[in-house]
Amino acid sequence: MGKTANLDIREREEKYINIQPIQAAGRLTADAMKAIIAYGDGYSTCDLCLKPFRLDFIKKPPIADFYTELAEFVNMDVARVMPGARRAFQAVALALLRRGDIALISSLGHYTLALAIEEAGAEWREIPKNEDNILTAEATAEKIERVKRENGKLPKLIAMHHFDYQYGNEHEIREIIKIGHEYGIPVLYNGAYTIGVMEVDGKKLGADFLVGSGHKSMASPAPTGVLAMDEEWAKVVLRTTDARGDITGRKFGIKEVHLLGCTVMGAPLLGMMASFPHVRERVKHWGEEVKKSNYFIKEMLKIEGTKCLSEYPRRHTLTRVFTGGFDKVAKTHKKGGFFLTKELSKRRITGPFPGATKEWKLNTYGLTWEQVRYTANAFKEIAEAYGLRVE
Amino acid sequence: MGKTANLDIREREEKYINIQPIQAAGRLTADAMKAIIAYGDGYSTCDLCLKPFRLDFIKKPPIADFYTELAEFVNMDVARVMPGARRAFQAVALALLRRGDIALISSLGHYTLALAIEEAGAEWREIPKNEDNILTAEATAEKIERVKRENGKLPKLIAMHHFDYQYGNEHEIREIIKIGHEYGIPVLYNGAYTIGVMEVDGKKLGADFLVGSGHKSMASPAPTGVLAMDEEWAKVVLRTTDARGDITGRKFGIKEVHLLGCTVMGAPLLGMMASFPHVRERVKHWGEEVKKSNYFIKEMLKIEGTKCLSEYPRRHTLTRVFTGGFDKVAKTHKKGGFFLTKELSKRRITGPFPGATKEWKLNTYGLTWEQVRYTANAFKEIAEAYGLRVE
Repeated sequence: MGKTANLDIREREEKYINIQPIQAAGRLTADAMKAIIAYGDGYSTCDLCLKPFRLDFIKKPPIADFYTELAEFVNMDVARVMPGARRAFQAVALALLRRGDIALISSLGHYTLALAIEEAGAEWREIPKNEDNILTAEATAEKIERVKRENGKLPKLIAMHHFDYQYGNEHEIREIIKIGHEYGIPVLYNGAYTIGVMEVDGKKLGADFLVGSGHKSMASPAPTGVLAMDEEWAKVVLRTTDARGDITGRKFGIKEVHLLGCTVMGAPLLGMMASFPHVRERVKHWGEEVKKSNYFIKEMLKIEGTKCLSEYPRRHTLTRVFTGGFDKVAKTHKKGGFFLTKELSKRRITGPFPGATKEWKLNTYGLTWEQVRYTANAFKEIAEAYGLRVE
Repeated sequence: MGKTANLDIREREEKYINIQPIQAAGRLTADAMKAIIAYGDGYSTCDLCLKPFRLDFIKKPPIADFYTELAEFVNMDVARVMPGARRAFQAVALALLRRGDIALISSLGHYTLALAIEEAGAEWREIPKNEDNILTAEATAEKIERVKRENGKLPKLIAMHHFDYQYGNEHEIREIIKIGHEYGIPVLYNGAYTIGVMEVDGKKLGADFLVGSGHKSMASPAPTGVLAMDEEWAKVVLRTTDARGDITGRKFGIKEVHLLGCTVMGAPLLGMMASFPHVRERVKHWGEEVKKSNYFIKEMLKIEGTKCLSEYPRRHTLTRVFTGGFDKVAKTHKKGGFFLTKELSKRRITGPFPGATKEWKLNTYGLTWEQVRYTANAFKEIAEAYGLRVE
């Protein structure tokens, strides 16, 4: 037997308070854990796949209902589960973009958007952020004009996060969507850090496409994501095939080309479905999560040399901090930055990038008030132990 | 809470002998079950994702080792885990095909290949099967010539199954690969029904690409698949991006464009890894699986009106049968074809398409001899109970 048989048990969530920036809102609910045990087999979802033989028509387990409820949840006409948000970006890019087209992304945008655009044969350009690391409607309009001037054509798509992954800042998403529409450019709302943690209303936003991440923000296994849109765009992005075999004459008329037919079966889908009632409930309590986030950052800022690099007060639970005090300690400590990792680990806290003491990200999503207080105190305790000033 | 909270426990594998055609070789091993429990969270694989920040470089859990061993297992230079075989088809199609190109698939080929080709803007044409439902090198050469004649250009890609999903017949894969190469056309070996159940040697086959399905034939959760190739093709299909942000100057140089970066994280990947030592072992016992398949079909053929529509003797465990006797019974039974479903169910056998009594598929993969005998006897018993002749 090869090395790969030796898999250690992962105990991060059982033994530690985990403030890892992208794991917090993705950790499974107990119901999702139960679901993946019962539906571990890949085709477990397909026992009763009857005519017309497509995942989203399956009634038992209630996948068809789930798809409907998912669309309602984000207030869009149609929703599909995708193998990750990136596969949703890809479907939209391949449906809308042609070779030589230009698409706009944020200068804080995720690399998977850039790859999806590149793979479709198109080019991506960045919309600049302002000095506060915010993407504005003004900057978007300027960039559209610039592309028009320099390339003699308008961008074909704008993809914009509501909250970005680097700072967790809130951007002018509604206004950016409006600007896009003034130019007749469809806008993809990237909700990887919103859908599943806060209420998102696609119609109210006016977005053409909503994309969410299951394993980032919907307490779902990987790889899962959501792609939602209105009926009109569904005709384009969810178009079915009308190709026909030249020999057999067969066609696969029900299959959605840009989804490659069925997308996510088995454990990841059922895990997502099992978490969904909890997700639907938890988005109502986003305000409380933001309160905890602000409390935590406020406490961190009491430590000598700490700055909040994200907008402050916080509107999200994902935050980028600068911890100059800890960095000063790391410079002379024989373990370097790993002294902090180790001190946190001793206190059963994990998540910050191993060895990082300068700029790093954290996420308090889903922690209880007791855990938030404990964690903030732990940082202050470590600071004091190493001679840093704590207010 | 919505309806989707009510998920019944799936007990198919616990309570039944399952001869469902596409589920047999995908059902999880006990080790895979354990792994998905420990690694349920989406980012469970990413705790120690260090520079250069790509899934296949992660050492703990031993993903890097697994990728290496996977390539060795199919004897190719490079292997990648994909979110399903279809996503592997898509990556190859998008890398190799341009608008207006033509690609050849089998007239018994899977719809996902057709969609992947269509999505790349290319067109698919079918290679005809012969009267025995076999794809031959001769038919392939004729089709290539025909495309050349009618379209003034050669196909850009040939995708061919070793064993097809409709009959489980063995096709002239080695010879077809040779023919492709004589014309300078790359050949994708579709091993959805071979990789993970029998020994597959990519170099010996001479294939340009190997594609396998995790949830079909590798005892892995969905969505998982394998894409393997040699170093030369890796430069094309696994090319990294050299695009750069026009504002930020950032690039994502390590990310593979056609894979959209990281592919499958969390439970599906770890489940696949946990099953892998078992898979590597079980391929050595394919001969025994084929023996059981032949025994089972031989017994079925004793029932009045039964024909084996697949090649016979069997070289695979997936078989298409015609059960004219049962169909005769169904015609007058008040439950129609469901009489057979119900009779099997009473005997704790499941898998044949519900209500089907005419043409249907089954798969004996992974059953013990005792289970095979029990299942064959059950069919004969039912036949006798309904007055059919049994030899």
